[in-house]
Amino acid sequence: MMRNIFFRVLVILGFFIAVVQIACAQNDPLPSWNSGPAKQSIIAFVQRVTSEGSPDFVPAEQRIAVFDNDGTLWAEQPAPFQGLFAFDRVRAMASQHPEWKNAQPFKAVLENDMQTFAGTGLQGVMDLMLATHSGMTTEEFESIVKNWLITARHPKFNKPYTELVYQPMLELLTYLRANGFKTFIVSGGGIEFVRTFSEKSYGIPPEQVIGSSIKTQYELRDGKPVLVRKPEVIFIDDSAEKPVGINLFIGHRPIAAFGNSDGDFEMLEWVTTGAGPRFGLLIHHDDAVREFAYDRSSMGKPDRGFDEALKRGWTVVSMKNDWKTIFP
Amino acid sequence: MMRNIFFRVLVILGFFIAVVQIACAQNDPLPSWNSGPAKQSIIAFVQRVTSEGSPDFVPAEQRIAVFDNDGTLWAEQPAPFQGLFAFDRVRAMASQHPEWKNAQPFKAVLENDMQTFAGTGLQGVMDLMLATHSGMTTEEFESIVKNWLITARHPKFNKPYTELVYQPMLELLTYLRANGFKTFIVSGGGIEFVRTFSEKSYGIPPEQVIGSSIKTQYELRDGKPVLVRKPEVIFIDDSAEKPVGINLFIGHRPIAAFGNSDGDFEMLEWVTTGAGPRFGLLIHHDDAVREFAYDRSSMGKPDRGFDEALKRGWTVVSMKNDWKTIFP
Repeated sequence: MMRNIFFRVLVILGFFIAVVQIACAQNDPLPSWNSGPAKQSIIAFVQRVTSEGSPDFVPAEQRIAVFDNDGTLWAEQPAPFQGLFAFDRVRAMASQHPEWKNAQPFKAVLENDMQTFAGTGLQGVMDLMLATHSGMTTEEFESIVKNWLITARHPKFNKPYTELVYQPMLELLTYLRANGFKTFIVSGGGIEFVRTFSEKSYGIPPEQVIGSSIKTQYELRDGKPVLVRKPEVIFIDDSAEKPVGINLFIGHRPIAAFGNSDGDFEMLEWVTTGAGPRFGLLIHHDDAVREFAYDRSSMGKPDRGFDEALKRGWTVVSMKNDWKTIFP
Repeated sequence: MMRNIFFRVLVILGFFIAVVQIACAQNDPLPSWNSGPAKQSIIAFVQRVTSEGSPDFVPAEQRIAVFDNDGTLWAEQPAPFQGLFAFDRVRAMASQHPEWKNAQPFKAVLENDMQTFAGTGLQGVMDLMLATHSGMTTEEFESIVKNWLITARHPKFNKPYTELVYQPMLELLTYLRANGFKTFIVSGGGIEFVRTFSEKSYGIPPEQVIGSSIKTQYELRDGKPVLVRKPEVIFIDDSAEKPVGINLFIGHRPIAAFGNSDGDFEMLEWVTTGAGPRFGLLIHHDDAVREFAYDRSSMGKPDRGFDEALKRGWTVVSMKNDWKTIFP
């Protein structure tokens, strides 16, 4: 009898625990985030700006949130994925460019000599990007990128690059939008590159993507208008140019910004120094096992953002400790 | 008895006529548009692309409509209103610029000598615009424009410029949005000028305004970040640059375009030559009594768009015949 009661209590208890777990999972908008200060700070901010009647309430049309892409919404190692795309393009286009066998940075790429490539510096990167990203119509470029995203595989994870988006960030995007936020990408990457997958991967439509851009030219070909991509940079959407791009494309000062490196510093500074409630967040890549650890540095120098985060009230996310899962 | 029945029939008839009129007004999404081919073509297009299951159905995220501003959403005579703003700024700033008394185009503006001003040509216009639109932060510029829009009056109508928006076009914007369209402004005017009133006047938020733009620079002033407007043009959003701007800012090819002059020609061409159902519309300013008649010409030459409208399937709106009211 005693054992029977004990057993029944256990079953009932188990049932209640299961119900509570399911209820909690359903109520948790960020299930891939571990409990802790980072998750708390996000939820507290969203509750603050969406509580009608509160002095910190922000009307929906001003709930603009901006996200860096590389290293913030998807991975960026061993190199930003658009760079890996450019390498693949050089290989694919090499037969039409015999001169590349003897011209840097193409020679280094074709010989897979990354040290020599790195030595070509910023000019090498620009030459690589312009040669592989121009000379076709916008529609042709879109289909080249989409095809690459389907066929290319990441060297470490052996998965399509679009599977290397961060699950906790996908949940965060959904959570913000469910609370009336309009989510934008503000990427140092190419605007038309990111737009090929932003809607499918992040639920962010092309008109909410800002990025680096090259000139396009309106032309008639066989009487049909096309936009032709020209080898001329018009805007590098990085560092102090991120607030410039935000102002040009969005025309509001956002109230929340999410980044991971000093390329995002001014964006976070611009966003978090405005009047009213503001939110800034930096992702720290400290998980060498599940992703990569690149220890608070980009471009070889320590990231200022992490040093100043406490003083500036920015939330720092440890991928290792704050994220239950990294990829979907 | 007979009179009594006659009277009762009249009352009942009158009642039914009133009911039908109210029902029609409620069902008419464009009450300021007279019945005719222009109004019919708009409604037919919207019904076509929103009928689920029809081969011409367009999913909501692709229902992008682009509108020129000057002469399409609000008046543009005797000169584009932003030009009149620049003239007023020259007068307001003259005491800080004694050199303007002897330098064109400022001298002509200060002496109200429009013939001499016109003689300074495109360079004169550029010098005028840059001198009056740069040298302040983006926030300062916004408040200067907003103040001008409240205080300035149109020379012919003696009304604030924001009251010279076109009532039929406001109804059209509302009608399109009610049918899942996202409405954008693509203006040759300044992007930050138009954004100061686009949301209030047209229900179009800043992030859905594209326009000509000058460089801004991120700076810290007393430790606070600002964006400073510099006297350097980065983009003139007119003619063949309108499709370029649409591609850069929106990243979709819209399915409907609305304009009034050859500055909108390539935008209409780009939009209406895409695959699937497309809509192009040009407004003809032919109403000298209620607005202005400038007889199919801008910049002195005949507008090609009106000559080719029939061939290209574009709708031409006669303000005189198609619009019941011009202003709200």
